[in-house]
This record gives sequence, C-alpha cells and structure tokens, in this order.
Amino acid sequence: MDPEDHQSPSDLRQVLILRPPPVFAVHEQYFSNKFQILKAYDSPLPTHDFLRSYAQSVRVVLCSGVRPITAEVIRDLPALKLVVSSATGVNHIDMAECRLRGITVTNVADVFSDDVADAAVGLYIDVMRKITASDRFVRGGQWPVTGEYPLGSKIGGKRIGIVGLGNIGSRVATRLKAMGCVVSYTSRHKKHSTPFIFHPNVLQLALNSDALIICCALTNDTRHMVNNTVIKALGKTGVIVNVARGAIINEVELVNCLVEGEIGGVGLDVFENEPNVPTQMLELDNVVLLPHRTAFTRESFHDAAQILLSNLEAFFTNKPLLTPVANQF
Amino acid sequence: MDPEDHQSPSDLRQVLILRPPPVFAVHEQYFSNKFQILKAYDSPLPTHDFLRSYAQSVRVVLCSGVRPITAEVIRDLPALKLVVSSATGVNHIDMAECRLRGITVTNVADVFSDDVADAAVGLYIDVMRKITASDRFVRGGQWPVTGEYPLGSKIGGKRIGIVGLGNIGSRVATRLKAMGCVVSYTSRHKKHSTPFIFHPNVLQLALNSDALIICCALTNDTRHMVNNTVIKALGKTGVIVNVARGAIINEVELVNCLVEGEIGGVGLDVFENEPNVPTQMLELDNVVLLPHRTAFTRESFHDAAQILLSNLEAFFTNKPLLTPVANQF
Repeated sequence: MDPEDHQSPSDLRQVLILRPPPVFAVHEQYFSNKFQILKAYDSPLPTHDFLRSYAQSVRVVLCSGVRPITAEVIRDLPALKLVVSSATGVNHIDMAECRLRGITVTNVADVFSDDVADAAVGLYIDVMRKITASDRFVRGGQWPVTGEYPLGSKIGGKRIGIVGLGNIGSRVATRLKAMGCVVSYTSRHKKHSTPFIFHPNVLQLALNSDALIICCALTNDTRHMVNNTVIKALGKTGVIVNVARGAIINEVELVNCLVEGEIGGVGLDVFENEPNVPTQMLELDNVVLLPHRTAFTRESFHDAAQILLSNLEAFFTNKPLLTPVANQF
Repeated sequence: MDPEDHQSPSDLRQVLILRPPPVFAVHEQYFSNKFQILKAYDSPLPTHDFLRSYAQSVRVVLCSGVRPITAEVIRDLPALKLVVSSATGVNHIDMAECRLRGITVTNVADVFSDDVADAAVGLYIDVMRKITASDRFVRGGQWPVTGEYPLGSKIGGKRIGIVGLGNIGSRVATRLKAMGCVVSYTSRHKKHSTPFIFHPNVLQLALNSDALIICCALTNDTRHMVNNTVIKALGKTGVIVNVARGAIINEVELVNCLVEGEIGGVGLDVFENEPNVPTQMLELDNVVLLPHRTAFTRESFHDAAQILLSNLEAFFTNKPLLTPVANQF
C-alpha cells in the first residue's frame, strides 16, 4: 500500500525545523515532497513567536546538534509528540523534559559509525605519517628546493588507547588492530565481550598508550577529561585524535601542550567553540584539522535521510517507529 | 665475540657511496663508526675519476634509488664484490652486469612494506574523506565564513582493485578489507593462496573497481600501464592511489583526466619526474600529494640501517649475508 494513497491532510503532516540539520539541507526535496516543512529559520518572527503560532498543530520536530531542543522549545509546543534527530547522540535534546511530557525521540542509530571510525583512522595515519603537512610541503613548491622532509612514525606496534569503546570506538579498534596496533580502552564499565585491555580511567590509559582516540559521548563526567595531566602522561611523542566532542578535551591546556612541545601531534574533527579553531593551531604542522565532518559522506547522508523519512512516515501513519531512543530513568 | 675486537684494517672496510641514501643520511654516524665511508658526492673529482682512484681497493658500494648503479659504475670498480641497497627494489642496479661479474646484491627485504601499505591506506582515506582539503579549508579560515564543505565518500563497500598483490599490495588488501571494502587484484599470475578476486589485466580490474591502489614494480610491462583508457574505465567517481613508481601511470593523461573531471580523485606519493609535480595538480582539491615518503618512518629507517650494517659487517668478517637478492636468469 503506497502511503501517498492514504495521505493525511497536509496540515497534519507538519514537521517543524528550528535550524536545518545537514542531512535535511542535502536532501530537502525528499522531505518537502512528503511533509509540510515549517522553517523557523526562514521566518522573520522571533523563534518563540514562531513556535507559539504553531503551538496547537505541530506534533513533530526535526533536529540535529546544530540547534538544541531545550525545555523552553518543548514547552512552546504543547502538541509535540515526536522529536526526530538526524544525529546518533541525543545530548542536544532535553531528554528529561521529553520523558515528562511523553514525547518520543528517534535518532539515526549507528548509521554514521563506520564513517566516523574511518575518518578517525585517517586522522591518525595522517598525523603519524605527516600526510597533510607533506601535501602542504609539495604544494608550496618546497620539494625541489629543500628535498628533505622529517620522518614520520610507524603505525604497527603502537599502543592505541580508545576512549569509549562503543559503536565508533570498537570500529576504530578493529581497524587499527588490522594495522598491527595493540589496542586497549577505557569506558564506564569493563566490557566482557572484547579482547582489548581495559584501563579504569583515562589517565591510566594515557600512561599505557602511544595514542588516544577519543570516541566517547560528552557528559558531565567526560567534559575536560583530557586535560594537561592526561596529555603529559601520554608524553612528548604521543598523539591524540578526537572525533567525539571538542569539550572532552581542555582545549586551552591542549594548545599550551602543543606550543610547548609536550605532545607529538593531534588530529581534531571537533572543537570547544565551533566553528572557531584556536589560532595557534593553524600554524602547527603536527596538527590536522577537520571542520566537524567525520560523519559526512554521500552514502551515509542518504541512509540517514531514509531513516528520518521512515520514522516520520511511520509516525503519521500510526506505525511503529524505526529507531526510538530509550528514555528512562 | 664483539666484531670490534677483530676489526680489519680500515682500508679493507671501505664502503663507497655515490649519493647518500636517505637511510644513510639519517644514521650516518652508525656507518662512519664502523667503516671507512668514501663519499663520491663530497669529492671535487668527477665521479669517473673518483671511482678510478679507488678501483683497486673498493669492494663494497652502498646505494639506493637516488643514484643508479649502472654498468659504467660497476666497470670502474673492478674489485667490487658487493652492492648493498637500502631499498627493497633493485631496479636502480644493473643486475645483469652484477651477475656477469659475480657481484652480490643485498636489499633490505620487506622492512618498509607495512609503512608503505599504511600510507597507501592513509592516502585513500584522505582522498575519499577530503582530509587534506578540509584541513586547508579550516586553516584558510573558511569554516566560520562558508560553513559548508562538500560531502566525502564512504569507504565501506567500495570495490578496491590492487595492482600488484605482493608484500605491499597484500598488506593494503588486508587493511582495506578490515574497513569493509571488497578487494580484487591483478598481477602477472593468479595467486592461489589469497581469497581476493583475480582480474587478468589492469583494464578489467579498473572496469570492476571503484579505486585502484598501485603497488607493483616498475618494469617495461608496467610502464604507462595506467593510461587514459584505464582511468576512464575506472570512471568519474573513481580514485587512484600510487605508492609504487610514478611512471606506471601516464602522468600527462592523468592530468588531463583530472582537469576534465574524468576521475574522482588521486593520492600520489610518486611522480614521473621527481621532485617535479605537474603544476595543474597543485591547484586541485581532489588530489593529495606526498614527496615520495611512504617508506619514511623513524622505526623503519632504524631497522633498515641495522640490516645494512649487518650485511656490511657480515661481508667484512666473511660471514653469510643477511638479505642477498636472487640474481639468476
């Protein structure tokens, strides 16, 4: 049965967006064809007024990390029943408020995990083998002039510390093991279904690793967890890759360690105050910088759009949601 | 027994170098401590005259791809017994002339294979996920201004064609398989000990692949093997990584295909006329350029130096060489 045949009136298929998630921006036509998209970001009204003007009708919000769904937003939409997130993490949504009001949240499951893990490995190889810095050396015309370029470091045999052995961390571990690395990890609890070595905290992990790959969620416990002490425990030839959230690292202390030569190199996809990157980093050759893009591939954006559309379609036709997020105390 | 105790007179431990191999340049002290190094490159004499001045005594030459050991060089050194190469390949040595004169050749076995394979994977991820181009975007200050950056391509599920499934190619295959790629290959002969799909030539491989990773030796058969026809068979979203030798690709035809958008992107460590890189490539964002450095890590240079020193020590103490290269018809 084609859902188009029994389409509800368009005013009952309203989807409100505060700021367009990247997946929506790329595949907007798919959404516009099937749903009435209410764009707060295109309205001249202040957000609060825009939300109140749809207070009685809007049952669905589509969102991502680019704009949090706060308790205030939720209270402005008393008819809200569903928050559809185009991200895997839901730390940009006030889950307690959703729980209180019986609002369901869906995410896109682990559709981006392989991409983020691939990019983490790419960043690690890049820092170790100086790929981006070498490309700059060649493009700057220096090869015929100076000839020499500093040696890189070998990947095989290095002790990799994975911070957070979840969907992404475990994929990074598998990939680096195939390159001859020795993998250990830290996480809230020791995992019994993995062959990798457990350390009870990030400092112990750093003391026993040549590199840290940060793959954990940002929580009150993990904020600024990678600080001056942890960085120095990793040591002067240590490498840090962060594909999780910028605030897991104390960025000021990281910059100081980079400038002082207290760490070998870093590959960063995320920063504390995106899109702003500390200016000292821009001059350093042992730093590789991405604009928060490790999840951004054509294929995964297509897959994520399909999950979002399927969740929306399921909601409006009273069928089971594909990827609801557990939301219990 | 410490070899120092029975050291031969220094004039019998002469090692002649035409141009310093990179491994020697980094670890020169190790060599100078044990052997009398005769540096043609430091002499005001023309090479021929320098060689003739040591014609009666020099039994060993240390070399690498930076300066070929031609039949002329060999004929200038009638006492020559051993050519020690700091590379794995020996295409820079006139092997036929060595055979005729009973000169043994040693290489460094596969000490660099893991490093080259790691860098090949790094180049592939970089091109697919736009790491170097994104770093340039961030360093150029564009992130806060334009915000958007083009999507990359997913690694998992891609059909990888390995050109030459030897020590390096098989390591690249293992690594990319761990990332979810489907690997096939071409080589002179089908290999029976591998699970990967065989194609009889590079054109068939290109027709059935999303990317080519070139890992084969440069021979008369492989020179310009990757030409316009092969590149177009790979297609407009195809990717080529070359960590072998520049001349395996017809560089003029590759540049044309890049400029015309007939190929998705390339990652190149090697070029036809090193250190010169075609200027059109320097402006392209879908190209990653390394200065022939995929083998260059501190760890492997150290290991390679140990192999070179051990071969030299073995020769001067009449012990079996570690890594002689088979040199038969």
